[in-house]
Amino acid sequence: MISFESDYTTGAHPAILKRLMETNMEPAPGYGSDAYTQRAIAGIREACQCPQAQVYLAVGGTQTNQLVISTMLKSYEGVVAAETGHVSAHEAGAIEYSGHKVLTVPGHMGKMEAGELKALLEGFYADGNHEHMVYPGMVYISFSTEYGSLYSKSELEELHGICADYRIPLYIDGARLSYGLTSSQADVTMADIARLSDVFYIGGTKVGALCGEAIVFTKENMPEHFLTMAKQRGALLAKGRLLGIQFDTLFTDDLYLENGRHANRQKDKLVDILKRAGLTFYYESPTNQQFVILENERLKEIEKEVAVSFWETYDEDHTVVRFATSWSTADEDLEILEQILMK
Amino acid sequence: MISFESDYTTGAHPAILKRLMETNMEPAPGYGSDAYTQRAIAGIREACQCPQAQVYLAVGGTQTNQLVISTMLKSYEGVVAAETGHVSAHEAGAIEYSGHKVLTVPGHMGKMEAGELKALLEGFYADGNHEHMVYPGMVYISFSTEYGSLYSKSELEELHGICADYRIPLYIDGARLSYGLTSSQADVTMADIARLSDVFYIGGTKVGALCGEAIVFTKENMPEHFLTMAKQRGALLAKGRLLGIQFDTLFTDDLYLENGRHANRQKDKLVDILKRAGLTFYYESPTNQQFVILENERLKEIEKEVAVSFWETYDEDHTVVRFATSWSTADEDLEILEQILMK
Amino acid sequence: MISFESDYTTGAHPAILKRLMETNMEPAPGYGSDAYTQRAIAGIREACQCPQAQVYLAVGGTQTNQLVISTMLKSYEGVVAAETGHVSAHEAGAIEYSGHKVLTVPGHMGKMEAGELKALLEGFYADGNHEHMVYPGMVYISFSTEYGSLYSKSELEELHGICADYRIPLYIDGARLSYGLTSSQADVTMADIARLSDVFYIGGTKVGALCGEAIVFTKENMPEHFLTMAKQRGALLAKGRLLGIQFDTLFTDDLYLENGRHANRQKDKLVDILKRAGLTFYYESPTNQQFVILENERLKEIEKEVAVSFWETYDEDHTVVRFATSWSTADEDLEILEQILMK
Amino acid sequence: MISFESDYTTGAHPAILKRLMETNMEPAPGYGSDAYTQRAIAGIREACQCPQAQVYLAVGGTQTNQLVISTMLKSYEGVVAAETGHVSAHEAGAIEYSGHKVLTVPGHMGKMEAGELKALLEGFYADGNHEHMVYPGMVYISFSTEYGSLYSKSELEELHGICADYRIPLYIDGARLSYGLTSSQADVTMADIARLSDVFYIGGTKVGALCGEAIVFTKENMPEHFLTMAKQRGALLAKGRLLGIQFDTLFTDDLYLENGRHANRQKDKLVDILKRAGLTFYYESPTNQQFVILENERLKEIEKEVAVSFWETYDEDHTVVRFATSWSTADEDLEILEQILMK
Repeated sequence: MISFESDYTTGAHPAILKRLMETNMEPAPGYGSDAYTQRAIAGIREACQCPQAQVYLAVGGTQTNQLVISTMLKSYEGVVAAETGHVSAHEAGAIEYSGHKVLTVPGHMGKMEAGELKALLEGFYADGNHEHMVYPGMVYISFSTEYGSLYSKSELEELHGICADYRIPLYIDGARLSYGLTSSQADVTMADIARLSDVFYIGGTKVGALCGEAIVFTKENMPEHFLTMAKQRGALLAKGRLLGIQFDTLFTDDLYLENGRHANRQKDKLVDILKRAGLTFYYESPTNQQFVILENERLKEIEKEVAVSFWETYDEDHTVVRFATSWSTADEDLEILEQILMK
Repeated sequence: MISFESDYTTGAHPAILKRLMETNMEPAPGYGSDAYTQRAIAGIREACQCPQAQVYLAVGGTQTNQLVISTMLKSYEGVVAAETGHVSAHEAGAIEYSGHKVLTVPGHMGKMEAGELKALLEGFYADGNHEHMVYPGMVYISFSTEYGSLYSKSELEELHGICADYRIPLYIDGARLSYGLTSSQADVTMADIARLSDVFYIGGTKVGALCGEAIVFTKENMPEHFLTMAKQRGALLAKGRLLGIQFDTLFTDDLYLENGRHANRQKDKLVDILKRAGLTFYYESPTNQQFVILENERLKEIEKEVAVSFWETYDEDHTVVRFATSWSTADEDLEILEQILMK
Repeated sequence: MISFESDYTTGAHPAILKRLMETNMEPAPGYGSDAYTQRAIAGIREACQCPQAQVYLAVGGTQTNQLVISTMLKSYEGVVAAETGHVSAHEAGAIEYSGHKVLTVPGHMGKMEAGELKALLEGFYADGNHEHMVYPGMVYISFSTEYGSLYSKSELEELHGICADYRIPLYIDGARLSYGLTSSQADVTMADIARLSDVFYIGGTKVGALCGEAIVFTKENMPEHFLTMAKQRGALLAKGRLLGIQFDTLFTDDLYLENGRHANRQKDKLVDILKRAGLTFYYESPTNQQFVILENERLKEIEKEVAVSFWETYDEDHTVVRFATSWSTADEDLEILEQILMK
Repeated sequence: MISFESDYTTGAHPAILKRLMETNMEPAPGYGSDAYTQRAIAGIREACQCPQAQVYLAVGGTQTNQLVISTMLKSYEGVVAAETGHVSAHEAGAIEYSGHKVLTVPGHMGKMEAGELKALLEGFYADGNHEHMVYPGMVYISFSTEYGSLYSKSELEELHGICADYRIPLYIDGARLSYGLTSSQADVTMADIARLSDVFYIGGTKVGALCGEAIVFTKENMPEHFLTMAKQRGALLAKGRLLGIQFDTLFTDDLYLENGRHANRQKDKLVDILKRAGLTFYYESPTNQQFVILENERLKEIEKEVAVSFWETYDEDHTVVRFATSWSTADEDLEILEQILMK
């Protein structure tokens, strides 16, 4: 059975496991005060061309979103996101659990439109009753988005400009940052991401780590006593070395972006196969996630040999499914897939 | 200056003040254990034809919604409401502050459509990822709604049936219950409200009390240790007598509904005046709130002599405003209003 | 049956009811924007000799404590209180419900000792692990305390100095402020309270109001968007007039302190009676609450004719009970009490 | 530099790393639905002799405590712990952040006394005001405790009996369970822990895993939709395989307990060395943590060559420090330590 189910089905990039082995018996202090973590932070600062960046390594994506949003918002504020944003739809209410509303604008294949964001913000302050409403206190977008789509540099600049006008931070969820940055259609770099956001995170889990997301505060704006608040939310890892070693490895020899490049190369091959097999695209994204519409009968057949992701019901007889490539997608898997689809 | 701004601009019905005076120096134990509160509860049970009803008297509407919803939901659940529902839009995130998401369906002049509710519930359980999403754990509607509209008995029965199918409670926000029940277009009674809901509240603040909302659990389903949870949320009044005396008075000699009847009679006169003055209705509701579209210039003129409520921007040159009658609207105020509008 | 059960068993001071009657039919805008509330605030500023004071009128004591503490603390902070402080012991966990720990120091008949507070603060920062602990972010005391005891001016100055050294606010719970300030043993004024605290509240509920507590921020330190946060916590009253009128009345003609003086005069008579009756004092306080140790048999007898408050079990055969006077304690009640106790 | 700082300074037991390597490229579904996790659960059930056990694998200790306690308590309940319990003192208020109070009893070298627990529970229900207080809804103990001490089987039976009488769960924090169970002074087995608790966790982080704690509900009492609530709290790992593989390895060939036995053997040698070096014990525990009192001057000298843990200030001139052994403590480290201390 081969899997195109998601980009987190395999373990870690071998370079990471190798480094874990090599360092295994060296004692290191806990909670991120180890030397590996310090090296990882240095590597991230360099990659972002942001020497003043403040970096915190967390374990998972929902944890990271909850931690960043709940520590940056004031009590009377909510976060603005697309309706399809991960924080809106697929985190079991983690943001609300922390006491804050997710205010939504429409999603356009996962993306927020600057005009609709602006309208929400203007409308809020124009409303005579806004003191009885939740203040928009942050904007959340993802890069690449939950649908694999990308913001262009000018789109990011526009969103960033709106946030600056309203003096609220722009937060970029980079669970799949590498897959976005290394897309042939991307016109932004990691330095752009750092420059055009107030805080973002560099996803490790989906890009070859066992676990781990690196939160980057780019404007010397890490909330005071952030470590204590992370502890309080169950988001401080005792053996911080596990995260430090992984991110140090990912940010050595450009491995983080190289993982993305591999996934995008395999994505190109995947798209070709899907097209040759005559499948109908629901959305042909510029990154590692591809969405096709399958007849339910055919889906059942395919699922006997290939793990894919249910995305949504299309109509009574059809389903939208996701095929994802990743840092670990092998040519062999693609060949097997082609044989299955061509039957 | 006359006021049609809202239904809570004046003090209390004189019968309430009179009763507060008469009982003022009698000592009474605190926290709702006084005899007045017991009498109020008896009166409410009778009016609802629900002898098993469990009643708790709270101070205000947002407090009540937060208390009911946060004590009835499990941690993994959210409440379903219309986008325009008070809990969605105008409580400064009080529900999210208590840790729960408000899941929304479209509002139709304030009302939720059974079909759209059903689609949300079916869709949730059909989604393969629903374990990563907020469970719909309660349905919230208001009667009359924030737009003054009303559910018919058959609509309530349908909503109640859907909730029963999914084994989630139906909660009716009755901030303006009296104004809804006594509308000429209403086909439900307070007993119907009790029968067709799992919990509802009888609004006092907007119907002639100084403050106070009576929460009614109709199915022997008051959460255990409710008083303690109210205390924990700052919603337990020390001098419970203040609430007990008011609701005892409102449920003596049918005063609660009589207050509504008065407001609806004055509403009829108001609608006539607005029509005679040639104003354009945004929504002519069956209850005490009426919405008209005014040219901004004319609004400015009117506001010099009449307090009304900003509702929303209609377009660049027009504004939707609300005129509300209440238990205390005097014929004289209507006469003055007519003179002003007819100028 | 007479009652010495507490200082909130009767309704409101007649002057308040009179004023409620007089103003009843005047329309007023909601949420504290009415003219009565503005007058109340002016009266309070003058009484505190604190023209820059920012005042918010809330409904009840636990609500007030939760609102003040949760809006002033940062997420990583807790509030320091005596073990017997109301927020520690008798608010059903309202502070923890808002996400914050109550850090405790011993209570000495309700009072916190400066030395013990200082030791806690010093110890916290000396602890090498304090990043994994709750930061002490505020100090809570009550005046008069839950045991009726009083801080002297020099004690308040010392506590205030310690808080200033650690740059954390000192919050004084004044549920019984009037009874404290008008005690013959008090050496502080309301202006001293304002000067020596960062925020305090003036209790209305126990001093002759139907409900209401006036929160006073004395150092231009009211948290931003406080009204919105109050709404979010269910602590914003629609008919703010109810609170405005009451506090305006209490701060007209010195009524607030006069209510306290009356209670303390009646307290002196009560103490005489308790002594003449040969009862053993558990604590003879300088204010309106008195604590005596009664044999359980005798207590049962007394309770047939007098309502008193259970305080705590003393031993198998004895109970500590509280007798409280208030603004409404009549001479006649004291005479009846004397007859009962002298039997 | 050698380290006796804690039991989580090194990486993972080599058998775990080996297994991570072997399985690395096998695709597996996420969120704990993988086969490794299922095998881990089977192994844990067998080790606990508790076939009905419901097991959830979380990442870290504070996260685990917050998750278990906040999902098992009702809103009006708090958890009872020793003052020195990890949840009371060293989790930055994680329990309070989730809305619940930690109710404390004295700690006796980390242990709770049954008599004092019983007194707290009896006292709570005897108090006439307990509806205004936090209900004790769970008891938290640790095995071994934060001081390395152990409960005997009869002590656990007594605590468990009290909890059963009050119908509240007993929760055992097993961050160092292996070190407790394999102490020569322990008279309980893992099956006893399962039998005498309602829920407990098997600590991985401190016993040779990179991360991970296995929560075991022993009485078919896992809260409904636990996975969703874990997600909501940021405690659901995408690559659940990382936890599954680790616990599967720890519960293969008795590795989990063997790790503990090794640490306790090294502990015996450590104690001998500390004694031979003439150090004064603050507490000679039966498990892998040892506490000695050092003159500050000497501590400074030692810390140049050995990492130890600050525990607490003893007096002006002395400090209590902790030496910990672990699954990875080598004989060589002990030999070097001896040389240093004997200088």
